[in-house]
Amino acid sequence: MSRNIYFTPGPSELYFTVEDHIKQALKEQFPSQSHRGNSFKKCFQSTVENLRELLNVPSNYHILFTSSATEIWERIIQNCVERQSVHLVNGAFSQRFYQTSVDLGKDAEKIACAEGSCASWKDIDPEHANELIAFTHNETSTGAAQPIEDIYAAREKFPDALIAVDVVSSIPYVNLDLDRVDTIYFSVQKSFGLPAGLGVWLVNDRCMEKANALQQKGLKLGTYHSLPSLVKQAGSYQTPETPNMLGIYLLDKVSRDMLQKGLDQIRKETEYKSTLLYYTIEEHASFKPFVKNSKFRSQTVVVAETEIDSQEVVNQLSSKGLIVGKGYGKFKEQHIRIANFATHSKEQIEMLVDQLNRIG
Amino acid sequence: MSRNIYFTPGPSELYFTVEDHIKQALKEQFPSQSHRGNSFKKCFQSTVENLRELLNVPSNYHILFTSSATEIWERIIQNCVERQSVHLVNGAFSQRFYQTSVDLGKDAEKIACAEGSCASWKDIDPEHANELIAFTHNETSTGAAQPIEDIYAAREKFPDALIAVDVVSSIPYVNLDLDRVDTIYFSVQKSFGLPAGLGVWLVNDRCMEKANALQQKGLKLGTYHSLPSLVKQAGSYQTPETPNMLGIYLLDKVSRDMLQKGLDQIRKETEYKSTLLYYTIEEHASFKPFVKNSKFRSQTVVVAETEIDSQEVVNQLSSKGLIVGKGYGKFKEQHIRIANFATHSKEQIEMLVDQLNRIG
Repeated sequence: MSRNIYFTPGPSELYFTVEDHIKQALKEQFPSQSHRGNSFKKCFQSTVENLRELLNVPSNYHILFTSSATEIWERIIQNCVERQSVHLVNGAFSQRFYQTSVDLGKDAEKIACAEGSCASWKDIDPEHANELIAFTHNETSTGAAQPIEDIYAAREKFPDALIAVDVVSSIPYVNLDLDRVDTIYFSVQKSFGLPAGLGVWLVNDRCMEKANALQQKGLKLGTYHSLPSLVKQAGSYQTPETPNMLGIYLLDKVSRDMLQKGLDQIRKETEYKSTLLYYTIEEHASFKPFVKNSKFRSQTVVVAETEIDSQEVVNQLSSKGLIVGKGYGKFKEQHIRIANFATHSKEQIEMLVDQLNRIG
Repeated sequence: MSRNIYFTPGPSELYFTVEDHIKQALKEQFPSQSHRGNSFKKCFQSTVENLRELLNVPSNYHILFTSSATEIWERIIQNCVERQSVHLVNGAFSQRFYQTSVDLGKDAEKIACAEGSCASWKDIDPEHANELIAFTHNETSTGAAQPIEDIYAAREKFPDALIAVDVVSSIPYVNLDLDRVDTIYFSVQKSFGLPAGLGVWLVNDRCMEKANALQQKGLKLGTYHSLPSLVKQAGSYQTPETPNMLGIYLLDKVSRDMLQKGLDQIRKETEYKSTLLYYTIEEHASFKPFVKNSKFRSQTVVVAETEIDSQEVVNQLSSKGLIVGKGYGKFKEQHIRIANFATHSKEQIEMLVDQLNRIG
């Protein structure tokens, strides 16, 4: 069986060190050890310390583990919203967070935009913006990235609202000042290059205060994964339930690997690779970037409109062992999506570009 | 590093085929493939088919995946209880399910008993037993197992209530007639011998009807992991979120391995091993079974009272590479807990018994 390279936007190629870390975990019999014992607690602590350093996390933030980013949508609404939330909807994933709030009975406001663009914080109704404003930094379905200046502007304009930022497919590339937002979250099967099944939720003390206030008003915050329960357990480097221990172990190791490589270096390489990808699809006879306005273009998920049916493009690349994603939802046949994550080397992207240039 | 054998009651020793299956999954690059693609859907379908065969699951049951059994407690209450639930509480884990119902604002009734024994269904207040009766078949904290005849008796007495059975640490050994209950659930890090981070939830159509009725009354069932959402996605062999794909892959393979070995054989071996363990602790100068009434004794988690401090026992066994659990909660120092799961061979249990006999 020949080995493929996965440029799909999540799940994606495993970070290149993951296989060795899994083998080491098995050798140490880590999955058999108690999640209440010292080896797991040390692993939890080390993971949190690595993430604090890598992502420059302020001390008033807690780092919590859930099973997915999808779960975090539910937990944010349950724990941080009494009545109203505002969602800047740039595509299918930000739409699902909005829908989560609706499904939980909240008065959710959607600020929409044409797909391939980004909604404007200026359209937010100030009457609605008292509790939570939700941004999706990088919309994996369309390749549109919200400029972080928009996020900071919303903070200035609505200082009382909690600002939540979905960084699922842009972390650790995105350089966000966490002092100017209140909670960010991601899952690990994208740029961290880990097997799926783990969500990472960073929340500051303002979110905790909000959760406590809601609880005092008699609202139900959930049970084992309420913010107070998660934060209490995290205080002793534990989780309320038996968690995806192997996932946390691998996140520990890969965040350490990324620290050793250096985030500046990862960011520089990401920009080199994205420049090459956008140049290639702009110059290509059959492709063009879906996101027209370059200030909205994602550096980590590059989406191309294709005149050739996307399945044909996928098949041609696949025959060379290069796996890219088709379009999302209604764009399935008209788009291809290419992940440009930390694990994708310059050489791999150059190889992909060579093959893209042979198409059409 | 010398290899230990983990007899801890979860996480526990990995099923003996797991390492090879993980290596194969990595070779196939399974974790990089889309959870919306055919390879994952085939894996989901195969897992469900294996579990249906292994556990003799009736056709009116759905098989669903969550992140833990702890999560399933929350989802059962959200989806199947409007006002009242009844909980037979035999120890710390059944207590936590009861507490989950309380935390979600329900009028939960607790039928308690002395630890090391089992609560009686005869103590259930018929006024409370209209919606859900929750049994914990095997209380991992004390080693007490509820006789399945009690469960069937409650069904006869309260035919309108849904019967939920926690089989976390007794599946696949427990031989439960699923036509006489409505939902069972477990996590995979116990007798299935998998890395933690996956819950398996079996629900019949009566549970679905209840969830639909609650929804029509305007209750919130949750969002991505509401029963209707899980069942809808499972209909096309998918999950609402990106799940623990590797966990599902391994469950597929290990349930196939168990089918090939045969559940009758696994059950016979379990009983041989438990007989040996109980005989050993009954005859031992320093140990005796915590569960006095043999009809309440678990076959899969054997708990011994120890006159020697449990840490000392654990240390002595550990020096031989044999890892057993200490007591749970307040029994930490007075008990040891020994898992007797499908992966523990007769030879391993005999080795443990030899060492137990050298203690004291």
